[in-house]
Amino acid sequence: MMRFPEEEHPNKAFGWAARDTSSVLSPFKFSRRATGEKDVAFKVLYCGICHSDLHMVKNEFGSSVYPLVPGHEIVGEVTEVGSKVQKFKVGDKVGVGCMVGSCHSCDSCTNNLENYCSKMILTYGAKYRDGTITYGGYSDTMVADEHFIVRIPDNLPLDAAAPLLCAGITVYSPLRYYGLDRPGLHIGVVGLGGLGHVAVKFAKAMGSKVTVISTSLNKKKEALENLGADSFLVSRDQDQLQAAIGTLDGIIDTVSAQHPLQPLLELLKTDGKLVLVGAPEKPIELPALPLLQGRKVVGGSMIGGMKETHEMIDFAAKHCIKPAIEVIPIGYVNSAMDRLLKADVKYRFVIDVGNTLKATS
Amino acid sequence: MMRFPEEEHPNKAFGWAARDTSSVLSPFKFSRRATGEKDVAFKVLYCGICHSDLHMVKNEFGSSVYPLVPGHEIVGEVTEVGSKVQKFKVGDKVGVGCMVGSCHSCDSCTNNLENYCSKMILTYGAKYRDGTITYGGYSDTMVADEHFIVRIPDNLPLDAAAPLLCAGITVYSPLRYYGLDRPGLHIGVVGLGGLGHVAVKFAKAMGSKVTVISTSLNKKKEALENLGADSFLVSRDQDQLQAAIGTLDGIIDTVSAQHPLQPLLELLKTDGKLVLVGAPEKPIELPALPLLQGRKVVGGSMIGGMKETHEMIDFAAKHCIKPAIEVIPIGYVNSAMDRLLKADVKYRFVIDVGNTLKATS
Repeated sequence: MMRFPEEEHPNKAFGWAARDTSSVLSPFKFSRRATGEKDVAFKVLYCGICHSDLHMVKNEFGSSVYPLVPGHEIVGEVTEVGSKVQKFKVGDKVGVGCMVGSCHSCDSCTNNLENYCSKMILTYGAKYRDGTITYGGYSDTMVADEHFIVRIPDNLPLDAAAPLLCAGITVYSPLRYYGLDRPGLHIGVVGLGGLGHVAVKFAKAMGSKVTVISTSLNKKKEALENLGADSFLVSRDQDQLQAAIGTLDGIIDTVSAQHPLQPLLELLKTDGKLVLVGAPEKPIELPALPLLQGRKVVGGSMIGGMKETHEMIDFAAKHCIKPAIEVIPIGYVNSAMDRLLKADVKYRFVIDVGNTLKATS
Repeated sequence: MMRFPEEEHPNKAFGWAARDTSSVLSPFKFSRRATGEKDVAFKVLYCGICHSDLHMVKNEFGSSVYPLVPGHEIVGEVTEVGSKVQKFKVGDKVGVGCMVGSCHSCDSCTNNLENYCSKMILTYGAKYRDGTITYGGYSDTMVADEHFIVRIPDNLPLDAAAPLLCAGITVYSPLRYYGLDRPGLHIGVVGLGGLGHVAVKFAKAMGSKVTVISTSLNKKKEALENLGADSFLVSRDQDQLQAAIGTLDGIIDTVSAQHPLQPLLELLKTDGKLVLVGAPEKPIELPALPLLQGRKVVGGSMIGGMKETHEMIDFAAKHCIKPAIEVIPIGYVNSAMDRLLKADVKYRFVIDVGNTLKATS
């Protein structure tokens, strides 16, 4: 029995949704479930715009369900907690990232890797346990199982904290897992967008020397002066590439457009790691010989588990790591999506949901 | 000043060489350097035929220098040692694998990874420090720096020990480095040739469950009954693949022909490792999404360092790991090369140099 989104659950909710692949978002009334005994409900204050929101709005992954309320970099203030909630209370500043559920019993879950659980439930556009579709943070309220709620430390501004919940953990986790988190290492970051600019900040805070690798010289000044990178490499400049061969311990590659891996593999030292966190749609050409001759690896990583997300946000608070953001009103969201497509943002749009999203009814 | 190979050095030597890319080997007189103070000289008794010998004979890597004496799985008995040699004496059973020199001062060398030293000197067809070209083990004598000499433990037959020096270390090293050496793991081995069949034996000895992955059912009986594999998977059988998705901790891929990586990546568990030890000539198609969604890696590995080679041969001795070989006289070497090209050998040809190679002069 299909019910209208507005009547599906007892709690009224309001947000902006895409209705089809035209990628235009507009106001949308729906509902949220009653706060369960292990649930935390919160008023949404800010929500980041992730590039994957754009893909989902356009159904570019082929999995979108409309109406689709995007948003998985959600921050707000707790309004209600269930009777069995132990770690949060009303008034706490909290957030939700990319996922709101997992099986809690598979190998991945028992190893704190809910992000790799085959039953992991995405924050929006996915089927929840009760059979209803999940809605994201471009909305006034949020409710989620305590396990997937993150406490935002006091010294992090809430607007800048939002992108840490996806962009932040997505680059922090591979730096840790692939052993690229030790002082004195030399780390490359490919692409200086929402993910890349946070990767620079984390790698610097971990004590690494950081080289930004980009297709154009445009971002050099910004990378060196504002983000604290140590050097800048234009990936199409053969002389620069040649001079940097065998100098990097690891590379975090945030680019999801097709791009050649061979030059990146050559930049790595023996035992170097090239980690993809953006997934090109089509298969990439992988030259095998550089892997053999330098025992190099090409690996991947996708967001991070909840334990590591808590660690990440505490690390960010300790080292004052704040994503560079442009705060926008909800009414600007369609324009922001257009600009995001052109990479015209330094570096993350964050919607000021708390002050600008008002129910129209 | 170019001198004839026969007069280049003081010690007469005799072997079989390829003279050009026609890939026909024939008797060849040359010379070996006088035993230096850190050198060990030995009478060659056995030499394995590695698939790369075939590539080198035909100049398929583009680096061959003719006349070319192949052979880098060389075993024999010490005949002379230099004044500063500490670990070997006349009469010892020893071997030489793929390399006879490295810089001893770079990061790779100081980390016991001479195999990744950019100045590593191959056992044959490479320029040695004195400017002369190195000659391999299809010959009556060998001389090499003590550092690159391996002691063959008493309980290993010399003929079967030969292939351990290339095929053996090539598969042992990645099992160790990629953490695929723990009891209870489930390891896949792709390709059941010279490398693959030794990989099965090492992985079993390390306590793993081993699945052989092959393009045809032909080798199933052999793999299960003679090599001790636990299961066999035909890589073109979609039902078998489907049933085995997400079951392997790691895969040692010994195949250098072009083959799809997607099915292999799907066989891996979260955090699984696909290690290439054979290098397809052309770039491979790498699907990125499986890497991200399961934090999987595609890595490479190339032979192993000397410290690890000693460990490998001791491990082989302890666990009675003996490559399956077909011993041939030197006169059969051209026929053996033809059969090797057709993978018509179980699983390694070893030339009985000691008993069949006689100087014709």
